[in-house]
Amino acid sequence: MRIASLIHNGRQSLGVVDDRGVRPIPDSADMPKDLMAVLPESEVLLERISKSVADVPPLPLDDATFLAPIPVPGKILAIGLNYRAHVEETGREVSPHQIWFNKQRTCIAGPNDVIDKPVASDMVDYEGELVVVIGKRCRHVPAERAHEVIAGYMVGNDVSVRDWQRRTPTMQMGKSFDTHGPIGPWMVTADEIEDPQNLTIKASVNGEERQSSNTSSMIHSIREQIEHLTTAFTLEPGDLIFTGTPEGVGAAMDPPQFLKDGDVVRIEIGDVGTIENRVANEVAKTTIG
Amino acid sequence: MRIASLIHNGRQSLGVVDDRGVRPIPDSADMPKDLMAVLPESEVLLERISKSVADVPPLPLDDATFLAPIPVPGKILAIGLNYRAHVEETGREVSPHQIWFNKQRTCIAGPNDVIDKPVASDMVDYEGELVVVIGKRCRHVPAERAHEVIAGYMVGNDVSVRDWQRRTPTMQMGKSFDTHGPIGPWMVTADEIEDPQNLTIKASVNGEERQSSNTSSMIHSIREQIEHLTTAFTLEPGDLIFTGTPEGVGAAMDPPQFLKDGDVVRIEIGDVGTIENRVANEVAKTTIG
Repeated sequence: MRIASLIHNGRQSLGVVDDRGVRPIPDSADMPKDLMAVLPESEVLLERISKSVADVPPLPLDDATFLAPIPVPGKILAIGLNYRAHVEETGREVSPHQIWFNKQRTCIAGPNDVIDKPVASDMVDYEGELVVVIGKRCRHVPAERAHEVIAGYMVGNDVSVRDWQRRTPTMQMGKSFDTHGPIGPWMVTADEIEDPQNLTIKASVNGEERQSSNTSSMIHSIREQIEHLTTAFTLEPGDLIFTGTPEGVGAAMDPPQFLKDGDVVRIEIGDVGTIENRVANEVAKTTIG
Repeated sequence: MRIASLIHNGRQSLGVVDDRGVRPIPDSADMPKDLMAVLPESEVLLERISKSVADVPPLPLDDATFLAPIPVPGKILAIGLNYRAHVEETGREVSPHQIWFNKQRTCIAGPNDVIDKPVASDMVDYEGELVVVIGKRCRHVPAERAHEVIAGYMVGNDVSVRDWQRRTPTMQMGKSFDTHGPIGPWMVTADEIEDPQNLTIKASVNGEERQSSNTSSMIHSIREQIEHLTTAFTLEPGDLIFTGTPEGVGAAMDPPQFLKDGDVVRIEIGDVGTIENRVANEVAKTTIG
């Protein structure tokens, strides 16, 4: 099932997406209002959701505004340098270890929201990524059981401010400017994705293809990622894992191409969906409280 | 005011701490039940809290169990290598840039909770740190206004798993094993700390002093930290900032001394308080759901 968070006619709801469009879940006390309430999803709940929209006429996707499916994740883990050709384009060596950083939860944006080109940098870049949504609280999950804790998948853009990222070895500060974590357009439940390690992944800027790869090229698979993370700490429902970006980032072009006001970045992952975000200059101002 | 989260006689509540002990806030619909509800604190609310405990007899501190004042922070930012003598003992160079990483929110522990010695490592270390509690949602805060967004201060132990930390340049995976973020014993509101950059900070293991410094030795002050962080992203009430550790960590001793089952680590910060945590071998097991 593809479950979206959307606004239609001023009402916010979850909706079920299929080839005919999106069917908002009718407002009812016993139906979930946000995706967090669907996690950990159960067959019973998904069946109830399915029944609830059986008689709802589908809306064209363009008639709804899609929101970030998980607007406030507990944590956002992101793995760096996880596609060999991307490691090579950055001029680094492949590490035997998984390289993790966090994105801050405040960077989450919707699948069509604006990406800020901050005043603080002219080196804003895209990174198309498959995003895993954790469905169960878990610890010490061996790779062979990792599928049990995955609720579903989304498309993500790990927007990166390259000068801030490179200034220190932890990467951290360049990875979480506000608006720099667009996700969506919906969550596809895990049962619908036959093989998450065999999905096409593409990114384009203003219609020009920049990234084109397949999740089969990950160095550390999603299963290995979950085993490694949960060796150290607990994952919780709604935690997100950004699973790495393939080659073709703007910073590796010759000359480097960074995002600027008005650019449109599109990330498309086969069987999952597409997000498309416009870049706009940030209007920076002090806000307190 | 010193506001604690505690359990006494099976009841969980907030409490006000002074030299005579702790006075639990009486159960009442209009009084806050957890510290998040006190942020952003207002003079009016603090006055109401103060009045509510005026006739409550103080309990000896030993009669109550103190909990992590903020059990589920939105985000936990931590600055690395922020005391010169600590940078030197690690054999690194002082960076002109602030080096940030995250601790995961799942690592939070109470001021007297057990610290796991995980199966995955024999290189567990302490780092005594002053922790800043953010009280207001804010962005683009200049250093000279940073005091406006600080609700208060706590003591923290940035427990670190050195082999996992050093394996990759991002540090991240060694910083957030479950239980590796003890905080407390309470939050001291900002108005009670005359100068947060002039507090003694000490750590001991089994009574042996290991760290003894002063927050005046920070390379990047708390004000500069808040300016830098909010240049990139929004801080929110309940976000925590671990402000760095001074020299004297176990990894830098000759030979290195790591924490083991049964050790007791005590972190003490002048005018703020003391946390004391016992180390115990983790019983690792797979848990899902």
